[in-house]
Amino acid sequence: MSHHIDSSSSQASSELARYMQALGARARAAASVLALADSGQKNAALACIGERLEAGREALKAANREDLALARERGLASALLDRLELTDARIDAMIQGLATVASLDDPVGAIDGLKRRPNGLRIGKMRVPIGVIGIIYESRPNVTVDAAALCLKSGNACILRGGSEASRSNALIGECVSLGIEDAGLPREAVQVVGTSDRAAVGELVRMRESIDLIIPRGGRSLIERVSEEAKIPVLKHLDGNCHVFVDASAELERALEIAFNAKTYRYGICGAMETLLVDVSIAEAFLPRIAERLIDHGVELRGCERARALVPSMLAASEEDWYTEYLGPTLAVRVVDGAEAAIEHINHYGSHHTDAIVTEHLARSERFLAAVDSSSVMVNAPTCFADGAEYGLGAEIGISTDKLHARGPVGLEGLTTQKYVVLGEGQLRG
Amino acid sequence: MSHHIDSSSSQASSELARYMQALGARARAAASVLALADSGQKNAALACIGERLEAGREALKAANREDLALARERGLASALLDRLELTDARIDAMIQGLATVASLDDPVGAIDGLKRRPNGLRIGKMRVPIGVIGIIYESRPNVTVDAAALCLKSGNACILRGGSEASRSNALIGECVSLGIEDAGLPREAVQVVGTSDRAAVGELVRMRESIDLIIPRGGRSLIERVSEEAKIPVLKHLDGNCHVFVDASAELERALEIAFNAKTYRYGICGAMETLLVDVSIAEAFLPRIAERLIDHGVELRGCERARALVPSMLAASEEDWYTEYLGPTLAVRVVDGAEAAIEHINHYGSHHTDAIVTEHLARSERFLAAVDSSSVMVNAPTCFADGAEYGLGAEIGISTDKLHARGPVGLEGLTTQKYVVLGEGQLRG
Repeated sequence: MSHHIDSSSSQASSELARYMQALGARARAAASVLALADSGQKNAALACIGERLEAGREALKAANREDLALARERGLASALLDRLELTDARIDAMIQGLATVASLDDPVGAIDGLKRRPNGLRIGKMRVPIGVIGIIYESRPNVTVDAAALCLKSGNACILRGGSEASRSNALIGECVSLGIEDAGLPREAVQVVGTSDRAAVGELVRMRESIDLIIPRGGRSLIERVSEEAKIPVLKHLDGNCHVFVDASAELERALEIAFNAKTYRYGICGAMETLLVDVSIAEAFLPRIAERLIDHGVELRGCERARALVPSMLAASEEDWYTEYLGPTLAVRVVDGAEAAIEHINHYGSHHTDAIVTEHLARSERFLAAVDSSSVMVNAPTCFADGAEYGLGAEIGISTDKLHARGPVGLEGLTTQKYVVLGEGQLRG
Repeated sequence: MSHHIDSSSSQASSELARYMQALGARARAAASVLALADSGQKNAALACIGERLEAGREALKAANREDLALARERGLASALLDRLELTDARIDAMIQGLATVASLDDPVGAIDGLKRRPNGLRIGKMRVPIGVIGIIYESRPNVTVDAAALCLKSGNACILRGGSEASRSNALIGECVSLGIEDAGLPREAVQVVGTSDRAAVGELVRMRESIDLIIPRGGRSLIERVSEEAKIPVLKHLDGNCHVFVDASAELERALEIAFNAKTYRYGICGAMETLLVDVSIAEAFLPRIAERLIDHGVELRGCERARALVPSMLAASEEDWYTEYLGPTLAVRVVDGAEAAIEHINHYGSHHTDAIVTEHLARSERFLAAVDSSSVMVNAPTCFADGAEYGLGAEIGISTDKLHARGPVGLEGLTTQKYVVLGEGQLRG
């Protein structure tokens, strides 16, 4: 049984709404079964999905080739074509990812902080799945498997809406996932791939309050903003990573050089890459020319404030706009600041509350920076590029939340659960 | 300096928007100071607020009398008039509440789960304030102090929007709160009372994404639904408490009688009051006539399913609508069910995911009920009326969340905070 509908026909919006509502109702029903499945059953499903993907490898590559051909016809940029492609190595990685998620601890059912009250009631919090999660993403078809695996292991049903350019690949991956889940005796509708490329489907999805508990958008700024604007359901979003490294007056010079260089150059395109370097005025003369030489040699373009340019004349002049910018490329803004308080103020004002670091040997300033910088990750003597679920020991991540509520920073299995109170009595009465 | 504006003039909506934006900007500025204030300073502010309320006691009562007179003229129902009134005893309770909040542990700054990664990085989560919280409530002016105290202690700035019928009382309480905060050397704009009764102010408040991080509505269903519909900011809401007690086949009869009676009659008007009693068919004949007699003697009207009415013929017939209803009064729906699974199904289908209890002596069924009932509190052998922050040991609560994300069930100081990652390194590099 396939739930796909023809995306090329011009559907009445009520038909689309009915289709989406049906997806939601099936997800809700599957969620109540999945919430009570034990870890063994969920791990078995992950293994079965891997087997289905292995068995479907050639068909998957064929479907992906059709997606690629159509995308090329439509003139998709080569970076996007690259993301879209399913090579054997990428299919291997998808299957390996399933095994990784199976190896992670199951967070569901743990009871935290069970304490006895004066009247003898024992009260604690039990970790439970959220319910049904809607995930909206772009291009990369591997997200279909990664997201499905994390939701499944954390006991949540999910509805996945990938990019239209990957629709054939995603539909087939979704079929493998559902068959694998069924092989393990769990409801195949625990994971459903939206079977229409109609953009209006996203609008429906983010308003299905009755059947969806959380929306996770993964993609560019315009997708995230559209979802935030239209959603009637809680959204866990991942916005920009405009990350800073602040080199404090007390920083050990060689360490600061290594950290700043690594934070910028480990990978330009990740959200934890440093985008602005802040340098205390008292160490600027010793530090700035050296880091600048190393970065420029590496092909990084520097845009500095006036004091920075006085020390490194080859820098371009930074504009106000630069302090706000996530370059995601070989460009770096550089500013000389008067002490740690000025650095903190710059970060909280211009930053995106993602990840920010201080390099310092001064205890009180490290404590102050940790407390005062309002970001999802705050680091001392480490490069911002460490902001990543695997590096944090989460095993795998569904994304990095820049929201403040529920989950902040890299979101792993625990971030896909919530807690309910359990109250254990022996006939106590109130009043 | 007072930020009140004249609510009787017909303002241009742009003027209202400017006024609200200014409140938001001041709150944001105050929040960054408050987030770093230590517990001693915050407790001092709570004490100073108490002194200001004590000093303003006569003025407060006079302002409240004006509110009451106007409300009577407008024909406000007597239950609402009662809620609105500020007696000496209620002012005492407000001041006592401040002392209670001062005595609670400050959650801010605690670091949980700091663990060393294989590369030596130490990674944990630091508890921090959320930022700026908007609270929208009705009638009771004491909420102004309670909410301000909880936000202050948890390091959050807040913007309070009370009911228009309490505007004079709330304005004066807000003035006492701001003066008390200032007395302790913290920014007076850490707590601001919206100085207009214009209903459009709520619409502005729930869209101020830049300056408010969380909206907490406290009030009736129509307020909550309006806020949920219009909000562009995360909302922590408290919806209905349609609570159940299920008397399992194995229940000890006397215990079940006491728990069911207490759950219904402790107080009819609280959200934890039992609204539907579910009874396993195998114990119904022994249990139902006895609990029915006791409840009917107490003045409770019973509405039952057919099997219940066969055992207690004086019961009215329950309609499908009754299973969904939160009576908040001396009415109880009664249904005979075929086992624990049927009870769980009924609760998850008709309930409001607030608080539900099982009375049982059977271990596996108690575990099953705890795992499968999808409510913010699930109880074993205890009456649902225990659902309350003070009873749970939270000291005080800002409300009971029926949302699944961030905080579920009674929300105390910890629910008004969030966590950020802290990463402590010694120059580790990635890759």
